[in-house]
Amino acid sequence: MSKPLRSLRLGLVGATGLVGETFLQLLTDRSTSIQELRLYASESSTGQTRSCQGKSYPVYPLSKGCFKGLDLVFFSAGDDISLQWAPLAQEDGAFAVDNSAAFRMSPEHLLIVPEVNGHLLKNARPQIIANPNCSTIQLVVATKPLLKLGLKKVKVATYQAVSGAGRPALKEMADQLEAMRSGQELSAHVFPHVIAGNCIPQIGSFDASGFCSEETKIINETKKILGTPDLKVSAFTVRIPAENAHSEAVWFEFASPVAKSDIEQALKEMTGLSYVAQQNPSDYPTARMASGKNEVYIGRLHQDKDDPTTWLSWIVADNLKKGAALNGLQIAELLF
Amino acid sequence: MSKPLRSLRLGLVGATGLVGETFLQLLTDRSTSIQELRLYASESSTGQTRSCQGKSYPVYPLSKGCFKGLDLVFFSAGDDISLQWAPLAQEDGAFAVDNSAAFRMSPEHLLIVPEVNGHLLKNARPQIIANPNCSTIQLVVATKPLLKLGLKKVKVATYQAVSGAGRPALKEMADQLEAMRSGQELSAHVFPHVIAGNCIPQIGSFDASGFCSEETKIINETKKILGTPDLKVSAFTVRIPAENAHSEAVWFEFASPVAKSDIEQALKEMTGLSYVAQQNPSDYPTARMASGKNEVYIGRLHQDKDDPTTWLSWIVADNLKKGAALNGLQIAELLF
Repeated sequence: MSKPLRSLRLGLVGATGLVGETFLQLLTDRSTSIQELRLYASESSTGQTRSCQGKSYPVYPLSKGCFKGLDLVFFSAGDDISLQWAPLAQEDGAFAVDNSAAFRMSPEHLLIVPEVNGHLLKNARPQIIANPNCSTIQLVVATKPLLKLGLKKVKVATYQAVSGAGRPALKEMADQLEAMRSGQELSAHVFPHVIAGNCIPQIGSFDASGFCSEETKIINETKKILGTPDLKVSAFTVRIPAENAHSEAVWFEFASPVAKSDIEQALKEMTGLSYVAQQNPSDYPTARMASGKNEVYIGRLHQDKDDPTTWLSWIVADNLKKGAALNGLQIAELLF
Repeated sequence: MSKPLRSLRLGLVGATGLVGETFLQLLTDRSTSIQELRLYASESSTGQTRSCQGKSYPVYPLSKGCFKGLDLVFFSAGDDISLQWAPLAQEDGAFAVDNSAAFRMSPEHLLIVPEVNGHLLKNARPQIIANPNCSTIQLVVATKPLLKLGLKKVKVATYQAVSGAGRPALKEMADQLEAMRSGQELSAHVFPHVIAGNCIPQIGSFDASGFCSEETKIINETKKILGTPDLKVSAFTVRIPAENAHSEAVWFEFASPVAKSDIEQALKEMTGLSYVAQQNPSDYPTARMASGKNEVYIGRLHQDKDDPTTWLSWIVADNLKKGAALNGLQIAELLF
């Protein structure tokens, strides 16, 4: 993932959102060679600028033919925008890397985490490539190396940060904390309940099965990315009042007993994954520690007492970086 | 649990702590008939008073023979105090209801949640009775009614509030939120990491198995209270930045498929448990909703997609009330 890129002509749709701004920051941090950069957002952002690599770029509204001449467009502006505009980017000859859920489970579209299934991009021609859900990405990076040890089943309970719901959600939590401080009434608009001082067992909307959409994403996307339709996956997703970085408590169940050293070795060999050995009791990743970092962290690896074929662990990653913008940029790096 | 008490002579050790103050509030709320009430705390609290049922009571340090003439002493001042003083309460002829972990797993001591195994107290004579761990209590109240449906396995990931670590922990989080607000450095003393804007996958200390003590408590206490040594229990406990009330994501695995209606009926029939049907999408318990309430709440009951014999749910209760003081007072109500 560190091969030098050819100088890229990039588009960014959703440039003023949290993921868009993270994408711009990563282009700067990684000194990506950019020949051209076009920023797009909703009309309400027209006239604004965003900086990247020390240069200021205007923010445009989307318009017919606006992607012409670009190599790749990163979309992070919601399902509807992607459904309408990503096919047009492809028509204009560009790759569309789409951070929405619009194309993820479509059998005609690839769903890519470079460390896990990046080989599928070999010799790819311009097309829509789906970027997975944030909480899925960190899970599959940690799960992939365990497949060869006979992994049968994954159960995950998530502790997801507010930034995953965008800037209005961060503002809502800040406003609630301020209201708590001054003894005022708390109100919730972005989330279904007050998030400050609370945790909310709902991310997205529910379907008839009783699972919410974030859980369904984890279950379905994990199997698609890993190419393991028979892997049993269950997820319970919860929003907690942390600003950034998602955490996950995970039970990995294997077909037969596995040695800790074999699991550790597999995790240590995995690209993009950082294994945190518990040399001191408090050595494990946390949201605050992982926020701003590129890696997926896994720690607290221990064997279940009552189910010796099951191992527990704790997985943390920055949901805006590896969970969204970084994964998209890594896809671009693989393509060019 | 609503039979009138005879007028009680009560002692309260740890009267100035969060659980102690909750106990006093519950005595007021429930109009418990009190003939005598003696409050104890560490010497640093000597000279303070606490009010109960509109009367002010002085806080004393513990001293030899101080429990003489009491019917029951509630202890919530940590393992060491209980180990030293609870046997003396028994010697002085009183029941000791102990909220510490000191006697919970002792084979000679009862570990009681009244709705679950309160029958064990029938004709009991003065002895030390252990009050379970907060996160265990709410789990067993919800689990007990499922045993008759063939429950085999329980996996729980917890979302535990800061109040469970006492008043210094609440102050630490408030200080951290204030420091975040004013752009100052954050520091942690009570918890191993900053809790504000974070979540910490450690409650208590770790043993060689890799489980932390809160997890071991849930695993061992659940089996003891339910009387089910063969029930497989696994727990992953996490502190989150909520002030009060613990939440739990739970996977219940049964020996064979069970109908939702049978689970619902069993849950609805359980004393002390409130089943939250999801009539609107956002109908489920949260920490903010359960804080200050006496019941254990269970919601988001749904069947696993890949494991049809497994059902997921979300359990919430006030850790200071049902998780500690209320359960202790209910034990007293059963005894007298």
